[in-house]
Amino acid sequence: MPTVAASPHSFDLALPDLALARGGVVRSHRARGWWWSRAGDTPEAPARGVPTVLLVHALTGSAQAGGKDGWWEPLIGPGKALDPAHYRLLCLNNLGSCYGSSGPGVEGFPATKKVDLTSLDISRALLQGLDKLGLDRVHLTTGGSLGGMVTLTLAALAPGRFERILPFATSVSASAWVVGWNHVARQILKLDPGYPDNVGRGLEIARQLAILTYRAEPGLDARQPRPAPGTDAGYPVQSYLEHQGKKLRNRFAAQAYELQLAAMDHHDLTQPLPGDTKSAISRVRASVLVVDVDTDQLFTPAQAEALASHLRKAGATVERTTVKSIHGHDAFLIEWPTLGPLLTKALHLHAPSQ
Amino acid sequence: MPTVAASPHSFDLALPDLALARGGVVRSHRARGWWWSRAGDTPEAPARGVPTVLLVHALTGSAQAGGKDGWWEPLIGPGKALDPAHYRLLCLNNLGSCYGSSGPGVEGFPATKKVDLTSLDISRALLQGLDKLGLDRVHLTTGGSLGGMVTLTLAALAPGRFERILPFATSVSASAWVVGWNHVARQILKLDPGYPDNVGRGLEIARQLAILTYRAEPGLDARQPRPAPGTDAGYPVQSYLEHQGKKLRNRFAAQAYELQLAAMDHHDLTQPLPGDTKSAISRVRASVLVVDVDTDQLFTPAQAEALASHLRKAGATVERTTVKSIHGHDAFLIEWPTLGPLLTKALHLHAPSQ
Repeated sequence: MPTVAASPHSFDLALPDLALARGGVVRSHRARGWWWSRAGDTPEAPARGVPTVLLVHALTGSAQAGGKDGWWEPLIGPGKALDPAHYRLLCLNNLGSCYGSSGPGVEGFPATKKVDLTSLDISRALLQGLDKLGLDRVHLTTGGSLGGMVTLTLAALAPGRFERILPFATSVSASAWVVGWNHVARQILKLDPGYPDNVGRGLEIARQLAILTYRAEPGLDARQPRPAPGTDAGYPVQSYLEHQGKKLRNRFAAQAYELQLAAMDHHDLTQPLPGDTKSAISRVRASVLVVDVDTDQLFTPAQAEALASHLRKAGATVERTTVKSIHGHDAFLIEWPTLGPLLTKALHLHAPSQ
Repeated sequence: MPTVAASPHSFDLALPDLALARGGVVRSHRARGWWWSRAGDTPEAPARGVPTVLLVHALTGSAQAGGKDGWWEPLIGPGKALDPAHYRLLCLNNLGSCYGSSGPGVEGFPATKKVDLTSLDISRALLQGLDKLGLDRVHLTTGGSLGGMVTLTLAALAPGRFERILPFATSVSASAWVVGWNHVARQILKLDPGYPDNVGRGLEIARQLAILTYRAEPGLDARQPRPAPGTDAGYPVQSYLEHQGKKLRNRFAAQAYELQLAAMDHHDLTQPLPGDTKSAISRVRASVLVVDVDTDQLFTPAQAEALASHLRKAGATVERTTVKSIHGHDAFLIEWPTLGPLLTKALHLHAPSQ
């Protein structure tokens, strides 16, 4: 087996129909995937003995985790923390998103007005993807924000399958705080005169709101300081928010946005899985590195502490690290020098005996 | 002089024309006031020797600080921290608001499209009000949020006039963080199909956003917990936000809202006053009690520390207290048992020698 990385590439999977937790069935179910591993290890014929790292993207992400424009590009590649010469790096576009997996407007996906989505649904679709690829065990699963919710849900749904997890800037259930922000974002989308089929400016503004919740005061003040007096071009933070809003409008769909917000809202692993009696979180057996950010406005360190406590009570081996950053929640997409060693640490967590 | 409180009552003042800092002139300038003092002390004939406490309201407040439905009702009245038997309690509706003072749609106020507002303008209108009432010295001036910005600006504009100030949950200049939130709120108003003359739902949603910035995660989770599973009526925080939005829509005007947001955005006492060369904040001579809230998401403790530092450099006598609360910024409208003693402390600060 060569230990030289091949090139990253995308692929598509045809998956079984998926019954959604809150009603409806995804038919013609498909998932867009991204894969980077050593030469000879492919989605079509995964090699034996290559440890899998499953990356779960956040609200508006795509499967493209690494390579040019990848959301974790600085962490992924030869010689980096996530090295495709040593690990099979895999990401699938979340169900209900708009980057190639089944979602609003795609044939077989339930009509928008009738569909709701939970972190359970996204996780089950990922499990179907792993099944299809024949990947029984996952060495490390990680993601931030909604990606962290899905990471936790996977480890609850299939405790024997996920050996190590690194849930980043996330929580055991969506707080009233998170549900509240998502509610306001949704109302902004609905205020758009083109809602639901042709939302434009509303998506920009919802994104502006989200961007602020992803940041924190000290980082924003450092990067977008007040202008010199007498300049009347407005405040830098206003241009910054407008730029961020337009960027998302050009690359994302409002209906997918609403569904991903819903998946966050309904995330609650303090409740049992369907047909079970004990809390979903108590099923987790993976070794866990819980990581949060000291200035995170959206998923606060208090949420991370609660999550770690739930996991410890479940009997899981849990470590916790709080990243220091002036940038808030988005530290998981910014603080590269800190993130690399955390991933390395997670890759080497002692796996639970099965 | 009797020391029995009379009843609180409202009054109106006709004021001189006011040239606004960013252009335009307020003509037929008027202010709505609220007054509670001992018997015989009236706006028409203020008694000598009664110390004045000037209360400055926040973004959507009115002059009615005390009495039924007053925004500081629990702190004001006989036997309370602010006792009208001992102090002349005075509040004026902020310029550009919609509770009786000159503002959008009122005769003599500049046309909405042409007008902008700063904390300087609101403060100058208040100074005109004090002049009209013949009140040369103010024993204590206090307000939270925008009210705190105005409190500070007053003490910078007329250093000899304001003996003690208690700026609450505020800052020396609007941070990028605050300007960012205000920007998103403004974009929501503009998305409303009735903008600018008939904004409805947009004002509700802008208020929902603001309410979240006024609160904090632990308080929101405590008061609006996740519902029991299986209940499909939505999340309590959603109903809470809807209720708060509708309440504001029924009592406030979008054009006034925009102007008050602008007054916050442009607040910057690190810059000199017009015609001056040193920073406005360095002019303050009042004795100061800076109060902030440990969970304030909007005006963080770091902002309060920066404010206190500016004031100390100016040579002012400064004390600082951080209120512990799970409720965030709105603690200044919630934590009554803590607020009373803070006001008492501020009333008895040693006044600077003139």
